[in-house]
Amino acid sequence: MLEDKKIILSEKDIPRHWYNIVADLKPMDPPFNTRTGKIATKEDFLPIFCEDIIDQEMSRERFIEIPEEVVHTYKIWRPSPLIRAKHLEKFLDTPAKIYFKNEGVSPSGSHKSNSAIPQAYYNKKCGVKRIATETGAGQWGSALAMACGFYGMECVVYMVKVSFEQKPYRKILMQVYGASVFSSPSKFTEVGRKVLDTDPSSPGSLGIAISEAIEDVVTHKDTKYALGSVLNHVALHQTVIGIEAKKQMEIIGRYPDIVIACLGGGSNFSGISFPFIMDKINGTHKNLRAIAVEPSACPKLTHGVFAYDYGDSSGFTPAMKMYTLGHSFIPEGTHAGGLRYHGASPIVSAIVKEGLAETAVVKQREVFDAAIKFTKCEGILPAPESAHAIKVAIDEALKAKEEGISKTILFNLSGHGHFDLSAYEHALAGDLGDCDYSKEEVEKNLKFLPEVKL
Amino acid sequence: MLEDKKIILSEKDIPRHWYNIVADLKPMDPPFNTRTGKIATKEDFLPIFCEDIIDQEMSRERFIEIPEEVVHTYKIWRPSPLIRAKHLEKFLDTPAKIYFKNEGVSPSGSHKSNSAIPQAYYNKKCGVKRIATETGAGQWGSALAMACGFYGMECVVYMVKVSFEQKPYRKILMQVYGASVFSSPSKFTEVGRKVLDTDPSSPGSLGIAISEAIEDVVTHKDTKYALGSVLNHVALHQTVIGIEAKKQMEIIGRYPDIVIACLGGGSNFSGISFPFIMDKINGTHKNLRAIAVEPSACPKLTHGVFAYDYGDSSGFTPAMKMYTLGHSFIPEGTHAGGLRYHGASPIVSAIVKEGLAETAVVKQREVFDAAIKFTKCEGILPAPESAHAIKVAIDEALKAKEEGISKTILFNLSGHGHFDLSAYEHALAGDLGDCDYSKEEVEKNLKFLPEVKL
Repeated sequence: MLEDKKIILSEKDIPRHWYNIVADLKPMDPPFNTRTGKIATKEDFLPIFCEDIIDQEMSRERFIEIPEEVVHTYKIWRPSPLIRAKHLEKFLDTPAKIYFKNEGVSPSGSHKSNSAIPQAYYNKKCGVKRIATETGAGQWGSALAMACGFYGMECVVYMVKVSFEQKPYRKILMQVYGASVFSSPSKFTEVGRKVLDTDPSSPGSLGIAISEAIEDVVTHKDTKYALGSVLNHVALHQTVIGIEAKKQMEIIGRYPDIVIACLGGGSNFSGISFPFIMDKINGTHKNLRAIAVEPSACPKLTHGVFAYDYGDSSGFTPAMKMYTLGHSFIPEGTHAGGLRYHGASPIVSAIVKEGLAETAVVKQREVFDAAIKFTKCEGILPAPESAHAIKVAIDEALKAKEEGISKTILFNLSGHGHFDLSAYEHALAGDLGDCDYSKEEVEKNLKFLPEVKL
Repeated sequence: MLEDKKIILSEKDIPRHWYNIVADLKPMDPPFNTRTGKIATKEDFLPIFCEDIIDQEMSRERFIEIPEEVVHTYKIWRPSPLIRAKHLEKFLDTPAKIYFKNEGVSPSGSHKSNSAIPQAYYNKKCGVKRIATETGAGQWGSALAMACGFYGMECVVYMVKVSFEQKPYRKILMQVYGASVFSSPSKFTEVGRKVLDTDPSSPGSLGIAISEAIEDVVTHKDTKYALGSVLNHVALHQTVIGIEAKKQMEIIGRYPDIVIACLGGGSNFSGISFPFIMDKINGTHKNLRAIAVEPSACPKLTHGVFAYDYGDSSGFTPAMKMYTLGHSFIPEGTHAGGLRYHGASPIVSAIVKEGLAETAVVKQREVFDAAIKFTKCEGILPAPESAHAIKVAIDEALKAKEEGISKTILFNLSGHGHFDLSAYEHALAGDLGDCDYSKEEVEKNLKFLPEVKL
C-alpha cells in the first residue's frame, strides 16, 4: 500500500496533556530578582502574570492537563497534518524521508496559537480584561489577538518597528481580530520614548517591545502580560506539536533520526522536539538528534554566553539563566523577525548545555533559497523563520544522500509566509543581505549582564 | 457524543470521479463561432486548448475519471475540511447549523487549485511547454503558477490591473512559484495596447485579460491557454468540493437545506453546488435551495440578459449562451476582483434559467462587515469573494432564527483573505464604497452582443 502524503489525526487525538520537560531535566538555576537580590518568587511574577500561568511556569509535574475549553478551541485547526515532503525528496534525489508538521494551518498562521489560546483562557479565568504583549514578525501578536477575540478581552500589541514596516498585513490582521497595534519603540511608554530620544530611527527589538508591553501592564488596570516564547509555560503549551507528531510517526511505523526547528526565543523548537527529547533522556531513543537552527544575525546558542540575563531590554523581568547575546543587543533588521531575540529559553539553554540538542547557524540568503525550492516542490510558502529549519533539513537530506543512508528527518513548518512576501520579493531580486552578528557589539552588550549571587 | 468541530476525510476519500452535471440537464445551446457563422467545433478550440481539455469541455458523460496523478497531487491538501461555524452560530444566536467547506487550505490559497492541477496535467500530457492565462484577484493565477511549477511548464499570467495594484503579494507568490506576471491591460499585446491608447488609466477587467492571454497563445509556440472559471471543464473539476462535502455531511447524518457560494465566472458555485443540485434534479432532495451570490457591482445572473456573448472583451472566443452584462462591460474596481466578470458560466446560467438555483445580490460594505464578524468568531480570514457567501449564510441563519427553524446551511469558503488585507484596512477605516453596476453602461454594452443564428 502506498503511504499517504499526509498523516491526519482526528479531533479525539488532540493531546489531553502538555509535556513538561522540566520534570525530566536536572534542577535548573531559578529565575532571580535583581531588585531584591533573591531567587524570584511567585509574588515577583504576580504583577504581570495571572496565578494559573505562574503555577505552570514553576511546575515540575511531568504532564499537565489541558483544560477542556482549550481542547475545544484547539479543534478549530488541530490536530495539524504531518506531511511527507515527497516532491522535495525527489528534487533532492535523496534516500532520506523528510516529514514536516504543518503548523501554518492555524487560522492565525503559525504555531503561536497553541500558547495564545491557553494564555487567553487562563487570563479570562483570572478576571483579566486586557492583555498587553509584544510581537516580532507578527505571528505571536496575530495569535494572541485572535485568542483574546475568542475570549472577549482587549489586546494591545507592541510590534517591533522593522516588522511593523515590513509586514503591514500582519498589523491589519491583528486589527481585524480586534487588537490595538503600536510600532515599537513607541511614544506610549517611557521605555519607548527613551529609545526614540537616543535613536529616532531605531528598528526596535523584541527586548524593547517586551519592555514596553510590561510597562503598559504595570501602568494599566486589569491588564496582564503575555509572552509568546522563552518561558517554561509557553514551551509547555507548544508540546502539542511534538506529541501529535509522535503519534503520527507511530501510525506509519517510523521514528525520526533528526528533529529540526528554528530558534528565536525557543517556542518553536520546544514544541516539536521536547516530546522526542523525552525519549532521548529516558533512553528509548538515545541516538535522536535535535537541532535548533539560529540565524547568523542572532546566534545566541552558538555564540552567546550561558549566564543570567534579563528577558527584556530594560531589565524589568527577573534574570534567567540562559544563552544570551546581552539583553541590550539589537540584531540587524533581517526578514525573520521572530528570531531577532537576544536570549534563548532557559529550558532550551539547559538542554543544549547538557548536550541533549545541537545547534546550527544559517545565513539569510541560503535560507530563502531553501524556502523557494521548498515552495516550488511542495506548494506551501513557509514563513522566513520556518525556512531556517527547511535549510537544515535539506542539508541533512543531502548528507544522507552522500552517505547513502535513508534517514528520517522531521522538521517543524511553524508558519506560512503569506505575510512575508516582501521578503521573498527581495530574495527573488537577489538583493538580500547575509546579515551577521557583530562580535564587538555582543562583547559590548555582555558587559551589562546583571550580577547574580545565588 | 459531541459532534466534532471539523469533519475530516482521509486521502482514500478523495473523489475518483468528477461529476458532469451537463449529463443531467436539458441539452444546452452550443458555443457558436461568429467567424464561420456555425456551431463551434472541436477544431475551433484546438488553437487555444489541448485535445483532452476540449473532450472534457464537450463531454456529456455523467462521471469522468480523475487521473491517478491528479489525485496524487490533490493529496497535497485534499480532502479539505468541512467545518461547523459553531462560534458564528452562537454569536448570531441562531437555531441554524452553519457548515463551511474550507478550500482556503490549498497551498495557493483557494479552490482554484482544483482545476489548475488537472489543466496543467492534461497540457503536460499533450506536450504543451508554456501556458498563458488571466487572473482577477490572483487566486487563479497563483493556482496555475503552482500547478505549472509542479509539472515543469512555463506560466504567463495577465493580472487585471486593479488587482495587480491592490495585491502586490499575489504577484510575488506567483513569481515564487516561477511564473511571469504582467499587469493587464499590458503593452505586450495588441489588445492591451489598444485599451491603453483609449484609456491609459483603465483598471482592466477579466474580459480584457482573457483577450490578452489568448492573443499571447496564438502568437507563441507550444503555448496553450487555461481558464480558471466559466467553462464546462472548469466547473467539472471543481465538483470535488461538493462531492467531498456530501460525504462529510453524510458522516454526521445531515443534508443541507441551503447551499451557498459566490459567483464570478461560476467555478466556485459549480464546485460546491452541482453534486447537491444533482439530487434536486433526480428528485431525492427536491427542496434543496442553491444560492449564487453576486456583487452589486457585477450582477449578471440577476440583472443581465440570457444571450449569446463572448467570453473575452475582444470577441476572440466562440460566443456562449449565458447571462451577461455585455463582454465590453467593465465593472467598478471593487475588492472582490474574482467576481468582476461580465458573464456567468453557461452551465450555471442554464441552471438558473431552469429554476434549479437562486441568485442574491450583495453590497461591498455589508460583505466586509460579514467577513469581519466571521473572522472574529471563527479565526479564519476569508477572501472578499468568499465573504459574499458568508453574508448570505448569515442572512439565512438570521431568517431561520426569525422563523424558529433549525435549518442546515452549507457555504463554500473558497479561499483565505491573506492577500486581501488592504481591502480589510479600508473596511476597518470605514471608507469602502458600495459599488453599484450602471444600468446605462450595461444597456450600452448589450448593444454589442454578437448576432447568432443557429
